[in-house]
Amino acid sequence: MSDTVETVDVAHIRYDARGLVPVVVQQFDSGEVLMVAWMNAETVRLTLDEGRTVFWSRSRGEIWRKGETSGHVQRLVSLDMDCDGDTLLARVDQTGAACHTGTRTCFTGRRLWERDEV
Amino acid sequence: MSDTVETVDVAHIRYDARGLVPVVVQQFDSGEVLMVAWMNAETVRLTLDEGRTVFWSRSRGEIWRKGETSGHVQRLVSLDMDCDGDTLLARVDQTGAACHTGTRTCFTGRRLWERDEV
Repeated sequence: MSDTVETVDVAHIRYDARGLVPVVVQQFDSGEVLMVAWMNAETVRLTLDEGRTVFWSRSRGEIWRKGETSGHVQRLVSLDMDCDGDTLLARVDQTGAACHTGTRTCFTGRRLWERDEV
Repeated sequence: MSDTVETVDVAHIRYDARGLVPVVVQQFDSGEVLMVAWMNAETVRLTLDEGRTVFWSRSRGEIWRKGETSGHVQRLVSLDMDCDGDTLLARVDQTGAACHTGTRTCFTGRRLWERDEV
């Protein structure tokens, strides 16, 4: 794609023993953390080529184009690597629900703990 | 602690084969994604007991009380589980820098890609 700025090369991503890296997916404007999924080198490249998130499904063992069946595509806004290169942060514009359960984020309604007074 | 509301029990967390779960750490008010680290069952319990993040260091193989040496403590505001229980989201109030490199977040300045026009 022509509308990109690359400051760190994807070759610096450090994949785990399975060849995977966890990806935090965040709604770019609201800051909501939508979900966490996994990419391998191939789906990182597909994500950048297509400008939308493409993951590796660990359960199905296959490429997973987010929203391909649901229409709930995540248009990529930016992709960052963390300090040691073993985690990615994808800022996206989420169409509809991020979660397959139909909720906006995968973290909706599953609170383990909260502080009464911040 | 007395000031807690628990809606899902921590027994529902699904740890991986190493007994670990990834934790996305987010600044509670700004929405910044600060870092991703790992917890085991013991450090989840310590985190809730102490009201601040305690991780499992995979590289050092030991409990890691975030900020113990740097003072850059993450006061826990809430802890959520995702839809399938294999990822946690910790909303915190970060003192100082989240990253050991001195930057506010571990995702600072390591951009792989960005879209020119959102």
